Amino acid sequence: MSSLSPEIAARLKDPEALLTTVVQDETTREVLMVAWMDTEALHQTLTTGRATYFSRSRQERWVKGETSGNRQWVREASLDCDGDTLLLTVQQEGPACHTGTRTCFVDGLLPVTVGEAP
Amino acid sequence: MSSLSPEIAARLKDPEALLTTVVQDETTREVLMVAWMDTEALHQTLTTGRATYFSRSRQERWVKGETSGNRQWVREASLDCDGDTLLLTVQQEGPACHTGTRTCFVDGLLPVTVGEAP
Repeated sequence: MSSLSPEIAARLKDPEALLTTVVQDETTREVLMVAWMDTEALHQTLTTGRATYFSRSRQERWVKGETSGNRQWVREASLDCDGDTLLLTVQQEGPACHTGTRTCFVDGLLPVTVGEAP
Repeated sequence: MSSLSPEIAARLKDPEALLTTVVQDETTREVLMVAWMDTEALHQTLTTGRATYFSRSRQERWVKGETSGNRQWVREASLDCDGDTLLLTVQQEGPACHTGTRTCFVDGLLPVTVGEAP
């Protein structure tokens, strides 16, 4: 049973499904990582000011930085238009990625044909 | 059968699964939306310079802006550390959200206890 308020739960597309969560650094505006929340993780995130997620592989909740110290302090949280994605703006302590890099995307560049708006 | 190069496919955690894609505006740095790609949509995105997704509800590929005109011109594409999320940096023509707003998150603010790094 989740502690999430019924008003917020009603804004989710599917409260039984995991919410895709995009985490953005408030200061640098970098996209730091993507993680997942169940409704209880969302409740904890909104009420404690510390980002809390649900691990799909371990099937358990985790508080970001609890073991690494690389905590995320929540500044803003917004649902998207259809209520299945959350954008979290945070103050990031230390690197966001478990590999030790600032974001999870810094080493992942793919070759692209760059597009240009007409 | 996807046209994606084996080298790029090998960097995906699971080429059979859909890739969570976060779209960020190159200029404003706003997170515009989240969408999904299969390997063929990824191939088309990387080779045409136009963002192409896979709709989970319609189970088909779609080129962003093809009907609305609100096209996304790809500037950069990066996989995350475990190869199941893509960050796309784009030049956005017009509003990104199908509701007509600049991003999919502008109307979705949730009440939060704001956290503050010590």
